[in-house]
Amino acid sequence: MADPFGIRPGEIAVDLPENFDAGLYYIGRIRTPWKSREECPKNARESDAICTIEVDARWASALQGVETCSHLLVLYWMHEARRDLVLQSPRHYNEQRGSFALRSPVRPNPIAASVVKLLRIEGTKLSVAGLDCLDGTPLLDLKPYFASTDAVPDAVVGWHAEIKR
Amino acid sequence: MADPFGIRPGEIAVDLPENFDAGLYYIGRIRTPWKSREECPKNARESDAICTIEVDARWASALQGVETCSHLLVLYWMHEARRDLVLQSPRHYNEQRGSFALRSPVRPNPIAASVVKLLRIEGTKLSVAGLDCLDGTPLLDLKPYFASTDAVPDAVVGWHAEIKR
Repeated sequence: MADPFGIRPGEIAVDLPENFDAGLYYIGRIRTPWKSREECPKNARESDAICTIEVDARWASALQGVETCSHLLVLYWMHEARRDLVLQSPRHYNEQRGSFALRSPVRPNPIAASVVKLLRIEGTKLSVAGLDCLDGTPLLDLKPYFASTDAVPDAVVGWHAEIKR
Repeated sequence: MADPFGIRPGEIAVDLPENFDAGLYYIGRIRTPWKSREECPKNARESDAICTIEVDARWASALQGVETCSHLLVLYWMHEARRDLVLQSPRHYNEQRGSFALRSPVRPNPIAASVVKLLRIEGTKLSVAGLDCLDGTPLLDLKPYFASTDAVPDAVVGWHAEIKR
């Protein structure tokens, strides 16, 4: 067992803090076609699958007005990810990189942020396009996506741009 | 005391779940010019203040590669916000709306998501533009902003567009 915790060469783990600083409520679940991490698309633009966000009944009223949004920012919890890696060597890249330079689920707080297109709301169920997560993923938050503050079409991730060249 | 908990007419609170489902680590702090909620800009585009993100030493290596990003998605914890409102009547709008249709700090999981322009990194301190939060706000995550998946320039928030007309 040279690799009992799934660390690849060049990856570095740190000791996690002893205590949590704040708590999260799961406010619903995300239903997707993907039952294992291997099945998940590498990113949401690789799939046009329609997924369903199921919001818990407790929060139903919080959806009022969401139907007027063309797009939402969805925050969810990548509950299967380890949290202690600071340097990672993703399989599809050949170099180690810091967790904060990657969109990998592996990070101190495994919160994912995805922009989805809202297709339909029926009660507390939202049909959306633009997710790439496991079926059953816990939902943390839904936010209206404001192009004025959230869209930066000319943003560049330098290390990624170089790979594509 | 007609309004002991700061609820405005038309606002609705629910009972929070009894237990948390997951825990968060504060991974740093955000330094801004604003010491009270009243001083904070209404949104980040109202201010070009340069703020400082201080990442805890434990996570320093996770910043490797971040310097190549023009923009970052910053997740932080709005630690002063109540979490039990489902309908809100923000002071600057005249109508009640669901928490998931608003970017208000008040939501079941008060995680904020802001896109910032990265100006400079020195050690574990990042100078950025585009934040509107309180000085001392706990940091949760930094992510590279990918225009290909994060930028949707034609997204519309219908209720907001109607107000502006």
